[in-house]
Amino acid sequence: MILINGRATSEIEVTDRGLQYGDGLFETIAVVSGRAVLYASHLKRLEADCRRLAIPVPEREVLDKEVAHLCQGISRGVLKIIVTRGSGGRGYRSPPQPQPTRILSIHPWPDYPAISSEYGITLRICRTPLGHNPYLAGMKHLSRLEQVLARNEWDDPMIPEGVMLDLQGYVIGGTMSNLFIVQEGNLQTPDLSSCGVAGVMRAFILEQAFALDLKVTVCSLTLLDLKRAEELFICNSLMGLWPVRRFEETEYPLGSVTQCLQRRIYSQLS
Amino acid sequence: MILINGRATSEIEVTDRGLQYGDGLFETIAVVSGRAVLYASHLKRLEADCRRLAIPVPEREVLDKEVAHLCQGISRGVLKIIVTRGSGGRGYRSPPQPQPTRILSIHPWPDYPAISSEYGITLRICRTPLGHNPYLAGMKHLSRLEQVLARNEWDDPMIPEGVMLDLQGYVIGGTMSNLFIVQEGNLQTPDLSSCGVAGVMRAFILEQAFALDLKVTVCSLTLLDLKRAEELFICNSLMGLWPVRRFEETEYPLGSVTQCLQRRIYSQLS
Repeated sequence: MILINGRATSEIEVTDRGLQYGDGLFETIAVVSGRAVLYASHLKRLEADCRRLAIPVPEREVLDKEVAHLCQGISRGVLKIIVTRGSGGRGYRSPPQPQPTRILSIHPWPDYPAISSEYGITLRICRTPLGHNPYLAGMKHLSRLEQVLARNEWDDPMIPEGVMLDLQGYVIGGTMSNLFIVQEGNLQTPDLSSCGVAGVMRAFILEQAFALDLKVTVCSLTLLDLKRAEELFICNSLMGLWPVRRFEETEYPLGSVTQCLQRRIYSQLS
Repeated sequence: MILINGRATSEIEVTDRGLQYGDGLFETIAVVSGRAVLYASHLKRLEADCRRLAIPVPEREVLDKEVAHLCQGISRGVLKIIVTRGSGGRGYRSPPQPQPTRILSIHPWPDYPAISSEYGITLRICRTPLGHNPYLAGMKHLSRLEQVLARNEWDDPMIPEGVMLDLQGYVIGGTMSNLFIVQEGNLQTPDLSSCGVAGVMRAFILEQAFALDLKVTVCSLTLLDLKRAEELFICNSLMGLWPVRRFEETEYPLGSVTQCLQRRIYSQLS
């Protein structure tokens, strides 16, 4: 089911700036037992990013009602919220009073094999780099061609994710996930002030690590750091946390820090 | 009038990857006396960029027919062609056999004051930088948030364009135009191998400069190069060529090289 500005329809105006210029934002949210998981955190990010792009923030009450309506009766699914700057303006220039478009849709839960979260996954490396732009970094905006090109680099169904580097060769994250390493028992995750998406699950893991007395460093990570890591894992709002068991030529154990965090996250969110 | 995959309608599926991920391309083409100006060059770029993104190239015959139909009877207007990867795929990953969406639309000619091409314009500088990505550089793709943010930095109707720099501070072009300087009677224009859009009018000007025996250098340009330039102009498919008379604190004459090129371009295209 799809609601566009509250109306059940599956089509939008071709003049919408989301289509014309990638001028908008989105959130991908897990739905479990009729409830949008980490909903408050997703809304907080959406609202913050709307402010960064000067897109009027959707009315909270309206959004809450629509989300509740769509999630009702869904035992396990995915809620996607898109907010665009709406139609209008001449060329790239926004209209003076943008009328945002709000698109909410429910999708089936992806067919992730249970083995990915239990046993872990194989990661590959992507050739497509992430460009730096501090003005866009961290946001889950609609201009996502870099991720599309990176994800199209491979077709092997046994490899669910690829690592993207920036142009300097620093590790930023997966095409659809954030990444952490464990080093000397503590966590490190890439700095996202120049590029990448600051995931809601990444933020949740940072909080949980704090509660578990794990030290976390947000820093620049190289491929050598990944190679030498004791443990490696990726995360997003749908997968939760997946241990990485192999990245190119390097193998990793199913480590205790990863498993401890994973147990805590799953128990907090179920 | 709008044609989507040949059908007269103004709405597209919300699942279209053009909206979901900025996964597509566009061309903005001047229409004069029922004819799409530099149509062959626009199609050539569109086809080349489709290949770069692995989007199936629209059938030439179909496109020609639709373009002719839309341009018929238009004395002066704008034709926009959007090609997206269509709907489908899971997340960023493309469907194995994408069915592209083709959107053709006709728009009124923008209300550019005649003075802009005759007397010249004032340019400003934008804060929003352009990120580098050689995998996307040069293409007129739909992921255009950088240009949207840059264009929203000012509201003064007397300033029609702003200059965008890359993160290293090199000049790349305008938000919607390419840029040339004249130095010692010859042309220089920014290298676009890391970012920027390689405009059809830019390519046409490069050809015309060759015919006029002007030397052209495609190179890195700094703000100091612009400040010291003898002449400065910008171009795109709608404006053609506009002399720049003022850029921040620097003033420029209505120079002979600019005027000579402008005359040649307008005579070739009318």
